[in-house]
Amino acid sequence: MVNAAIVGATGYAGEELIHILLKHPFVRITNLSAKIDAPAQVSELFPRFKKRIDLVCYPLDIKKVIMEADLVFLALPHTVSMSIVPKLLSAGKKVIDLSADYRLKDPKVYGQYYQTAHTDIPNLKPAVYGLPELYRQKIKGASLIANPGCYPTAAVLAVAPLLATAEIEPHSIIIDAKSGVTGAGRKVANDFLFPEVNEDFRAYKVNSHQHAPEINQDLSKLASLKIKTTFVPHLLPLNRGILETIYLKSLKPKASTRDIIALYRKFYKNEPFIRIKEEGSFPRLKDVCGTNYCDIAVKADGSTIIVIAAIDNLLKGASGQAVQNTNIMYKFPETTALV
Amino acid sequence: MVNAAIVGATGYAGEELIHILLKHPFVRITNLSAKIDAPAQVSELFPRFKKRIDLVCYPLDIKKVIMEADLVFLALPHTVSMSIVPKLLSAGKKVIDLSADYRLKDPKVYGQYYQTAHTDIPNLKPAVYGLPELYRQKIKGASLIANPGCYPTAAVLAVAPLLATAEIEPHSIIIDAKSGVTGAGRKVANDFLFPEVNEDFRAYKVNSHQHAPEINQDLSKLASLKIKTTFVPHLLPLNRGILETIYLKSLKPKASTRDIIALYRKFYKNEPFIRIKEEGSFPRLKDVCGTNYCDIAVKADGSTIIVIAAIDNLLKGASGQAVQNTNIMYKFPETTALV
Amino acid sequence: MVNAAIVGATGYAGEELIHILLKHPFVRITNLSAKIDAPAQVSELFPRFKKRIDLVCYPLDIKKVIMEADLVFLALPHTVSMSIVPKLLSAGKKVIDLSADYRLKDPKVYGQYYQTAHTDIPNLKPAVYGLPELYRQKIKGASLIANPGCYPTAAVLAVAPLLATAEIEPHSIIIDAKSGVTGAGRKVANDFLFPEVNEDFRAYKVNSHQHAPEINQDLSKLASLKIKTTFVPHLLPLNRGILETIYLKSLKPKASTRDIIALYRKFYKNEPFIRIKEEGSFPRLKDVCGTNYCDIAVKADGSTIIVIAAIDNLLKGASGQAVQNTNIMYKFPETTALV
Amino acid sequence: MVNAAIVGATGYAGEELIHILLKHPFVRITNLSAKIDAPAQVSELFPRFKKRIDLVCYPLDIKKVIMEADLVFLALPHTVSMSIVPKLLSAGKKVIDLSADYRLKDPKVYGQYYQTAHTDIPNLKPAVYGLPELYRQKIKGASLIANPGCYPTAAVLAVAPLLATAEIEPHSIIIDAKSGVTGAGRKVANDFLFPEVNEDFRAYKVNSHQHAPEINQDLSKLASLKIKTTFVPHLLPLNRGILETIYLKSLKPKASTRDIIALYRKFYKNEPFIRIKEEGSFPRLKDVCGTNYCDIAVKADGSTIIVIAAIDNLLKGASGQAVQNTNIMYKFPETTALV
Repeated sequence: MVNAAIVGATGYAGEELIHILLKHPFVRITNLSAKIDAPAQVSELFPRFKKRIDLVCYPLDIKKVIMEADLVFLALPHTVSMSIVPKLLSAGKKVIDLSADYRLKDPKVYGQYYQTAHTDIPNLKPAVYGLPELYRQKIKGASLIANPGCYPTAAVLAVAPLLATAEIEPHSIIIDAKSGVTGAGRKVANDFLFPEVNEDFRAYKVNSHQHAPEINQDLSKLASLKIKTTFVPHLLPLNRGILETIYLKSLKPKASTRDIIALYRKFYKNEPFIRIKEEGSFPRLKDVCGTNYCDIAVKADGSTIIVIAAIDNLLKGASGQAVQNTNIMYKFPETTALV
Repeated sequence: MVNAAIVGATGYAGEELIHILLKHPFVRITNLSAKIDAPAQVSELFPRFKKRIDLVCYPLDIKKVIMEADLVFLALPHTVSMSIVPKLLSAGKKVIDLSADYRLKDPKVYGQYYQTAHTDIPNLKPAVYGLPELYRQKIKGASLIANPGCYPTAAVLAVAPLLATAEIEPHSIIIDAKSGVTGAGRKVANDFLFPEVNEDFRAYKVNSHQHAPEINQDLSKLASLKIKTTFVPHLLPLNRGILETIYLKSLKPKASTRDIIALYRKFYKNEPFIRIKEEGSFPRLKDVCGTNYCDIAVKADGSTIIVIAAIDNLLKGASGQAVQNTNIMYKFPETTALV
Repeated sequence: MVNAAIVGATGYAGEELIHILLKHPFVRITNLSAKIDAPAQVSELFPRFKKRIDLVCYPLDIKKVIMEADLVFLALPHTVSMSIVPKLLSAGKKVIDLSADYRLKDPKVYGQYYQTAHTDIPNLKPAVYGLPELYRQKIKGASLIANPGCYPTAAVLAVAPLLATAEIEPHSIIIDAKSGVTGAGRKVANDFLFPEVNEDFRAYKVNSHQHAPEINQDLSKLASLKIKTTFVPHLLPLNRGILETIYLKSLKPKASTRDIIALYRKFYKNEPFIRIKEEGSFPRLKDVCGTNYCDIAVKADGSTIIVIAAIDNLLKGASGQAVQNTNIMYKFPETTALV
Repeated sequence: MVNAAIVGATGYAGEELIHILLKHPFVRITNLSAKIDAPAQVSELFPRFKKRIDLVCYPLDIKKVIMEADLVFLALPHTVSMSIVPKLLSAGKKVIDLSADYRLKDPKVYGQYYQTAHTDIPNLKPAVYGLPELYRQKIKGASLIANPGCYPTAAVLAVAPLLATAEIEPHSIIIDAKSGVTGAGRKVANDFLFPEVNEDFRAYKVNSHQHAPEINQDLSKLASLKIKTTFVPHLLPLNRGILETIYLKSLKPKASTRDIIALYRKFYKNEPFIRIKEEGSFPRLKDVCGTNYCDIAVKADGSTIIVIAAIDNLLKGASGQAVQNTNIMYKFPETTALV
């Protein structure tokens, strides 16, 4: 039985972690903390958990976390995690960081996109990017997991099979991404008020989103060359889910949809959370929301290949993937608490 | 041509006023102000108005308002209006206040519900409650209109015909009210974030909402006795509209739906914005949203009478009614710019 | 291990049953059928279940159901169940009927509200109304469960403590109910198209809904006298959840909120799925959706008592309650697969 | 004063036409018809129009239409219009067809995408494609307007300036389009039920939508060469609005955003319904819904140019554009009834 702490328990990812871990037979939540003024019963903060969990959520107290937990989930805003991680690692804890602080290997790029200098450069290198489908072996032995961003999870899973097998022109990748509102975290700002989002749809941070360098870094690694994608995120008037429509140029002018599907099925053979759609079927958010699955469809049209991928941004795109990483790190069955 | 100012132009009611007045042939917007840091083109604040209006919106400057406008709409948060109204009236302006500051005749009740002492008691008496269907004559000569709240508009219009004709037990009025999110104004708070409201529904301020004393005051006046209703508001996951389901006890045990409909039709004969539904038909928000109408249906069931009323909270419940009052004050055709 | 069949697997309640039973350690789905033209993989009908269940869903074949299952869930439209139930009971099966066919004890009332004569009157009497909080003992030994309607579940749980203890005037119960769209089942009709429901809200079947006699029957039984409530259902623009705001007249003029809360806590002591809110807190759909809980709040205001109850219409209001009944019938821990 | 008939008055486009024309000072609705069983007051079909219009809507009777109207709007499903148009033209009427029947010049392509042979080939040639920004001169003298599809309106307006000036590679146009549900018309089908669309998002008819050949035809004409775009439409969980994100390859490797904006401003100089966004600002549905505007933004990123365009599918994408065409045909000010 693993004793786990959730730091940042009052955000959407923290809440989802509680929800998942309550079903986990081998992980016990022993410590909850968040940026709050005074300790509060978690069932007061989240009445949905009433009768299910009794814990008190505290203002963050690192020493308490270290005393009470072996595994620490950091569900914090970007730039906060890196002030805590070194202390946790020094104390011998395993850490899964859901923020962006350890995802980008180049601190300069981090500084540029997150408007602050990185303060824990030594741990950037040992941090393992927690995308199990690509890095399962490294995750097994990791002490610090940089849990991937929601947009990058879908984008990298969608493009990897074609990029890794050199089937596509690597410099013409276009990612048109659409996300539900929880993707932005619990931000109390005018832009996320109900009447501003409901019945609206818009692009934002056009080709300047902070997940773009993460996607570019991951794809560059896969292709062994420097890739810069075109990445346009949009805000959907719904709570959960990301769907990305990705446009690629085939290097084989006559690739068939059927062949590409076969390639994806082979690439993701044995992956418990990847589902490749039949020809002519396409993912929809309803099928993945509330699950840890990533649904992927492909369609070839002349030299253009269209790949569509969908995930639940709070599960496969955040807390679900964090628990999947936990299961791998602790050698529990990988789908534990996730199906 | 009337020169009009809108103070508080960046809120939902202010935005709606701009939208309506742009269609008004006899009113010209000459001054826009709001709580903003620096002057800004209104088409920058609201890109939807681009190509339709050129004005700059300024931080509030009362002298400028007085110089540039004859009629002033105050679309301000409660407690702010009463600091401005005396100055405007002294300068001979006509004022339509969309806040609650001049609705409650008893400053003690105001103090209790709005948590602050009233600072302009002398103007409480001359202020006319701007519900045209009941107070049209007084509105004609008013200098200061207290534009009714959205919940009270629907409630009072729905109950008035039965209460004024002494058909119902006055002490057993139950108002189950449901409002879209713009009813609360543009409040940047966790409770109004999209993921908090979307796919949710809840009661709030159960029998303690600040519109309750306004409803009670209006109904008491109609009945010439002190009435206290049961009033439970709920928050709907949609942008606009209020629907109230009201339960009354008939004093005539065998009142028929048909008779009551006839009574309502007679009571509201010639009213341009009241529509009484046929027997068996009931209002829905879609039919009134985007309009200044109030749709009302009644159904008798034994000694219980059910009345259902629907309005657009930003139109008949706020800015539309304000323009209806304008039309009455200036003797324009009452429906000008409203159909 | 119980072998279970779901008849009507393609409706919302059937889909939810699959979802729950996939997590149930002691129940195995062995047969799925529905009104479909040809057999189809369930993962084709519901791509969300892909990789989780392999079964084929067949057009209904009673003999196959009888051969393959011990327990049969009927998630069928009203009036269809009663043609199947006698055959299943004769074959010794246990049946949980989610339709209304066995809920009303009086076939005349059934005929009036469901526009057809009841064809299985002998089984009306032995059928047990499956509301565990009131009828747990009878459920234990039942062969045929009439699983309660969604509106009645919330209404009866909300009113029972006050009615059973004779604290309220039994002839003045007003139920203002609001339901998400799945409450109506999967009805392909203009009224349930997205643009007809989205951004709309309306009352329907005002005081004439088919759940009214079910509520009246249950409350009458509790009070040991004939009760007729005022029941007005409304349609919410959201997928799941029912919230009912109920207005009662106290027989004790000075009942306090605190006392009534205490009474509710005592009445529902040890109930795993009832949560009574603290004074001043009220239920919201978000807290119960996705769960089998019923959240209840009360507030006294003079002689009026306001009770607010919320459930997920597909869980505590349908399939969750069906599984709760299953757990009771088979002496599994009552919360199995439900928390 | 023009007497106008609306054929197909009960669909979304027909309803919107009524709404617009009620505000039109020079057009009078004299005839309403639809596929209904018996004549009905339009205020019964659409209670929102109660007190605003008195007309009876009839089952279609061509002779009555011809007798009562000079201008006929056909808001019919595809393949129905072409059976009526010849009769109306023979009778000397002006016709604006909102269906697809006269948009595609090549009847073979029509047959392929609409699954039926075209039955009025002679009128294909004289039909004028009603996109005022490109074909205003021809519209002036037209008897038959093929009112453009909603997706093509946004796509063609977005791409035209760059394509017409040969700034982009014409064979690599990628259109990622997102539409609200009314874009599909009033289709009573499972896919458009509220619970199927709400909280969901999905691509559909991937690169096989019937608007693709219309877009290709229009762009080919502009470029004077045969163009085939990549076109992926998606369904948004909202009522109204289309937003398209379009990816183009620049032929000038160093095109700046500023230069392209200047080019768009010049191309659409004097256009009353085109608004080009400032650099760094992007369209959103809220700004165009309820208006006849098309908002367009561009951003250059290396050799990729991103163009984003937004319209209200029922206004600039259907009925608003139809009225704009009316204004042009009858030499009314082009914005009459549209701002």
